[in-house]
Amino acid sequence: MTTVEEATRLVLSTVRSLPVERLPLPDALGRILREAVTADRDFPPFNRVAMDGIALSYAAVAQGQTQFEVVGMQFAGQSPTPLTNPATTLEIMTGAMLPPGADTVVRYEDVDIAEHTDGRRVATVRVLPPKAGHNVHVQASDRHQGDVLLPEGTLLGPAEVAVAATVGATHLVVAQRPHVAVVSTGDELVELDQAPLPYQIRRSNSYMLQAAVWQAGGRAERFHFNDDPEALRQGLPPLLHQYDAVLLSGGVSMGKADFLPAALAEAGVEQLFHGVQQRPGKPFWFGQHPQGAVVFALPGNPVSTFVNYCRYAAPWLRAVQQPTLPQLEATYAVLAADFTFNPPVTHFLLVSLHSTSDGRLLATPERAHGSGDLASLLPSSGFLELPAAQSVFPAGTVLPVWRFR
Amino acid sequence: MTTVEEATRLVLSTVRSLPVERLPLPDALGRILREAVTADRDFPPFNRVAMDGIALSYAAVAQGQTQFEVVGMQFAGQSPTPLTNPATTLEIMTGAMLPPGADTVVRYEDVDIAEHTDGRRVATVRVLPPKAGHNVHVQASDRHQGDVLLPEGTLLGPAEVAVAATVGATHLVVAQRPHVAVVSTGDELVELDQAPLPYQIRRSNSYMLQAAVWQAGGRAERFHFNDDPEALRQGLPPLLHQYDAVLLSGGVSMGKADFLPAALAEAGVEQLFHGVQQRPGKPFWFGQHPQGAVVFALPGNPVSTFVNYCRYAAPWLRAVQQPTLPQLEATYAVLAADFTFNPPVTHFLLVSLHSTSDGRLLATPERAHGSGDLASLLPSSGFLELPAAQSVFPAGTVLPVWRFR
Repeated sequence: MTTVEEATRLVLSTVRSLPVERLPLPDALGRILREAVTADRDFPPFNRVAMDGIALSYAAVAQGQTQFEVVGMQFAGQSPTPLTNPATTLEIMTGAMLPPGADTVVRYEDVDIAEHTDGRRVATVRVLPPKAGHNVHVQASDRHQGDVLLPEGTLLGPAEVAVAATVGATHLVVAQRPHVAVVSTGDELVELDQAPLPYQIRRSNSYMLQAAVWQAGGRAERFHFNDDPEALRQGLPPLLHQYDAVLLSGGVSMGKADFLPAALAEAGVEQLFHGVQQRPGKPFWFGQHPQGAVVFALPGNPVSTFVNYCRYAAPWLRAVQQPTLPQLEATYAVLAADFTFNPPVTHFLLVSLHSTSDGRLLATPERAHGSGDLASLLPSSGFLELPAAQSVFPAGTVLPVWRFR
Repeated sequence: MTTVEEATRLVLSTVRSLPVERLPLPDALGRILREAVTADRDFPPFNRVAMDGIALSYAAVAQGQTQFEVVGMQFAGQSPTPLTNPATTLEIMTGAMLPPGADTVVRYEDVDIAEHTDGRRVATVRVLPPKAGHNVHVQASDRHQGDVLLPEGTLLGPAEVAVAATVGATHLVVAQRPHVAVVSTGDELVELDQAPLPYQIRRSNSYMLQAAVWQAGGRAERFHFNDDPEALRQGLPPLLHQYDAVLLSGGVSMGKADFLPAALAEAGVEQLFHGVQQRPGKPFWFGQHPQGAVVFALPGNPVSTFVNYCRYAAPWLRAVQQPTLPQLEATYAVLAADFTFNPPVTHFLLVSLHSTSDGRLLATPERAHGSGDLASLLPSSGFLELPAAQSVFPAGTVLPVWRFR
């Protein structure tokens, strides 16, 4: 049976780059940039006034001058008026271009402006500026024209969208969203609007996986097949050719109705592994069609389905959108209580997570009734990955954690 | 001037419940539940077989019997066949209802099944089950019919969607998305597709805020007003009546073109505070229209705009969707390097955040060029809140952190 590490390596070995598309800027939120965004101008593009106040020449202040005749007013967005006489000053607003002849801004709070009866206005500097350039955001001090601001592979959040706006990027080139078929299997499953017979239950895994794919930046459609080799023989090939990935749940255990591995082989899907040294999720099957989709055949117990989706499929969905980037950093959490797990397999332990006032992330194991207990996911915010080689985990042990909220 | 704590209290004092809407289950992902979801059946709804194997009566095993004639096969989703003779067994698959007469399942891995020439099949139990009920997920052991599975106020993620599917909730009642007008002000701002003059820049704050509102579960439209009292007088009233919140950026400093506070007062917006003891974001103005929107008038420097949005507006947007719930838990991070900030105001310090292998969240201050340096948001994943009363923060200090990625 495959180890978790080897299964991870095999899953990520199938990652290839998705095609790109060009989207209007607001629609690119949450997507992965696939063409770098560079600065079309310096940042700031001019010597930018950083406070409301008066613009003057520092040399005059340095020579002891504290009173300046106010010869004008310049708002942000106005063409600058040169300050030709260094004994004078201009009122000036945040965001304005510093005019030629001025090099320093004194904010209103540090100035008194007196209006004389003849209409002349005189500013008295009460708090002297410490140096030339005070309250001026100097051209190119943040970034230079031509600098890469957003490299390929960037996840586009609000700050990235704003930076793109600043350089006039009305459209961005991003990775297409991975297109996923989510397939439930099992004769015991009925649709949501049907009343289940006493020995039936409603479909839930396909709704869960569809939602999870959406959250990972993909788009997903739901399908259902009964436990019937013929239904699989007919149903699988179109999905393998129309989707980037097929997520199946159920049908991969040792049961007599677990027809999936055979049906997938028949449909031309190459098995990369079947069975992983882990709990939950031992029967997990993974393969790849030579000209088509990768197939995650997840165990059908809902906790097992979800945990294995998070552990293997979600990183794959992220990776196909940003194949040039290294893997995400691991997150670590501190086990809040002693925990023992004897079987020599990797254990994914559902936990609730809390930030403590000493800056640690504390993981409290959630009481679970086994991998059939879907509701045990509700109070959990992730799962710890307990290595196979260890059985006893004292409170305080630090372990990698996979967050799903 | 208002303290950060008082500003927070005043902002949240305006929270009232948004109307609800009823959505198809898949569309409810990411929304806040406003009508509890209860169990329509027990969980599991029947004694559910948890492993593929054989179903038998534990009493027979306890009496020393290890060989059982296999009298049938029951798949998941089939009506159960009672096991009338406790000396016999049924092959049974995961997810099936345990048949009357059986109380224990032995998995295939622990059984040998021999096929005799007369067609009889006999199972020999190699590994004895430890107790009655082994590998059976007992009816109602997880939840009882009528239990609240998802309380009002729940944020609907994939696991919650799955739980709702299980109880047949084809539709869910959720809070409407808050509807937000995002308004940029400033004569220096041009649209993205215009070539800015040397003293102009492109709009970016409104794109940033629109994206941020979207991420917080709201929907937002963008507007722009020039620094012109008449434009504000005409433009503001319709927004105040059509939206739940108006987010403005710029126009609230001490500048001669900062007409907003007067224009808002004229439009009937009651000022709750103007000016907060914080950096960045000192000029932040907040108010409420008696029959309309709340107004967040954020400072126009992009870092200031974004940090104050995250600190005040994002929690408000969340709270109006789930007004019955307590505030979100604080998250804490450990300062990675000594930091000094002398002014006696609360300081929001941009940091990158990394999970360390000892389970702590480490916050490294990002070099910033002041609140005009939009690009300094890019390497940051949040900001620490440094209390006003303290100036020197040695490495290792633990502080509340606001994450925006």
